[in-house]
Amino acid sequence: MKAVRIYGKGDIRIEDVAIADPADDEVQIKVKDCGICGSDLHAFLEGWGLPTQPHPITGKTVPITLGHEFSGQVVKVGSGVDDLAVGDLVAVEPLIACGRCANCRAGNYNFCNKALAKDGAGNFLGFSQDGGMAEYANVQDVFAHKLPEGMSPELGAVCEPAAVAFEALKKSGLRAGQTVAVIGAGPIGLVTALLARIAGATRVFISDVSEVRLDQARKLGFKDILNPAQVDVNAVIREGVPDGVDVSFECAGVQPTFDTALKVTKRTGIVQIVALYGHSVNINITDDLIMQGIDVITTLCYNNSFPKVLEIINKHRDEFQSIVTKRIGLDDALEDGIKTLATDKTQVKILISPEI
Amino acid sequence: MKAVRIYGKGDIRIEDVAIADPADDEVQIKVKDCGICGSDLHAFLEGWGLPTQPHPITGKTVPITLGHEFSGQVVKVGSGVDDLAVGDLVAVEPLIACGRCANCRAGNYNFCNKALAKDGAGNFLGFSQDGGMAEYANVQDVFAHKLPEGMSPELGAVCEPAAVAFEALKKSGLRAGQTVAVIGAGPIGLVTALLARIAGATRVFISDVSEVRLDQARKLGFKDILNPAQVDVNAVIREGVPDGVDVSFECAGVQPTFDTALKVTKRTGIVQIVALYGHSVNINITDDLIMQGIDVITTLCYNNSFPKVLEIINKHRDEFQSIVTKRIGLDDALEDGIKTLATDKTQVKILISPEI
Repeated sequence: MKAVRIYGKGDIRIEDVAIADPADDEVQIKVKDCGICGSDLHAFLEGWGLPTQPHPITGKTVPITLGHEFSGQVVKVGSGVDDLAVGDLVAVEPLIACGRCANCRAGNYNFCNKALAKDGAGNFLGFSQDGGMAEYANVQDVFAHKLPEGMSPELGAVCEPAAVAFEALKKSGLRAGQTVAVIGAGPIGLVTALLARIAGATRVFISDVSEVRLDQARKLGFKDILNPAQVDVNAVIREGVPDGVDVSFECAGVQPTFDTALKVTKRTGIVQIVALYGHSVNINITDDLIMQGIDVITTLCYNNSFPKVLEIINKHRDEFQSIVTKRIGLDDALEDGIKTLATDKTQVKILISPEI
Repeated sequence: MKAVRIYGKGDIRIEDVAIADPADDEVQIKVKDCGICGSDLHAFLEGWGLPTQPHPITGKTVPITLGHEFSGQVVKVGSGVDDLAVGDLVAVEPLIACGRCANCRAGNYNFCNKALAKDGAGNFLGFSQDGGMAEYANVQDVFAHKLPEGMSPELGAVCEPAAVAFEALKKSGLRAGQTVAVIGAGPIGLVTALLARIAGATRVFISDVSEVRLDQARKLGFKDILNPAQVDVNAVIREGVPDGVDVSFECAGVQPTFDTALKVTKRTGIVQIVALYGHSVNINITDDLIMQGIDVITTLCYNNSFPKVLEIINKHRDEFQSIVTKRIGLDDALEDGIKTLATDKTQVKILISPEI
């Protein structure tokens, strides 16, 4: 079958590989749609997240089939699988977890101590196990979530980035009636803003330096759109919400946006980190955290969230569909997909659809 | 009456001042004991926390009577006070709060938006309102907490630092059966360790570079005493608790101890900041927070905690009494108190007792 394989920094090849039958606790799916994530770009540009030594659970090193935002149709079922059948459409929760360590047993399988045991070991399909940028993929049954009746595989592929945002919302404790700032209007920022609105936030401020991205936010119906190159973001937010927002979601991952998130948040508020940070940041714990009563909290992936997120997406199909701006075939994954994502900011979510 | 007045950095005078009758919602207390805190030292050495412009609530600027860890006996009662009577022994919760802003009404009166409205405005007696290093003090009735029957004023004065530690425990979510690291064995570190043990922590590691301070911890019966100048703190903790501790309490306030707290804490654990930080710190959000699922959280003072802390202290009188290492009179407050605290590390808590 055809697959998008990464060998290391700057080295992605589209090639033919074999796929084994699914193990007893796996299903094999024919991939329908697989989103390209910023982290795929980081893997290509910087070699980020790729296993250089055998992964503690999967034993895999590069080359790896990329792709962790995917949906598909079950075509084969392992002998121990009893809740999925051939023909089922599923969204894949792309985690690797042992199911046995203290964190897995506590429900925090996204922090599986075995999967993350070694420095640099990841817990993700598409990094430490073959992922969804291929015609077929084998996935563990517990991580293959049936799509709600009538929901498209395209929307199924959007579940993964939506789950990232959902987990941030969950951990932030956001409640209906609260106010929100989303710093950074990339795909995750936009989905976070969508989910915050769905969760009943009464005001959602969105900030980004890119007008193209802010236009995407406008298209989604957001009104409080701020470009820090043009306005004082904190001043504008404080005009509307004098005490500051209840929760800010930091979706950009650099020092200036981190500082903005701290600044626009009310005393006793939450700064919820959603982005990954490429560099360390500086923080004045006394002035910015202690005296403000602000908690800076983070999430890694998600746990026990996919079924809820699928239901949310299914209830708001049009909004999430508008996140998908392009669909391409496997052969075009590198040129029209990964490389395009790096340069064309009009793209929100590009899907690789092997049947195209 | 005699009072310890601070005029600014390096300028403390023991002088005679008048005291007004208590307002309608105040009681006047004859001060029995008043602890000296590290922050009093910072105020003296660096001018830290002193109001240079009129405080938004109290209208006060320097000079101010220092002291925020105090107990006393009610000698006068304002006309609107109905739950306190002359003769009552009380511990003072030294906060300034409007009681009307959104944070006050939400129970977070330690983050009163009015008290903290201006840059540098504090919310503390002894900084933005006259405190307890004097023969008498006026305090708001809601902040004067009756001591449990038979409890000494000395222990009443220990309530404030214990409440700081208690608030950290409360916010950390520490539960019986969990493991703890306390980084820094100053007065707050020791009280934090005591409270963690009382709260059912099964293992309490205490780390400090000062052997004198570690000896204080040994005297309190702690066994897991670590000096980072002699051992690899993380390695020793991981021998006992391979996944790392559930909660670490950072009670030192510098980059190396912050880093240690992150390092010794388990995935999905809590780093609870108890110390104030004099300088910014550097943090790798992706590696140290996101990938570890560690939350770094802080507290400022306390709210709704004093009655609980008084009951805890009353149940464990001997342990908390051993925190008090010296009592001095008002005249000796500067030389034998504040200055001594800066140099003599055998002292844990020095009390100023105006009746001496």
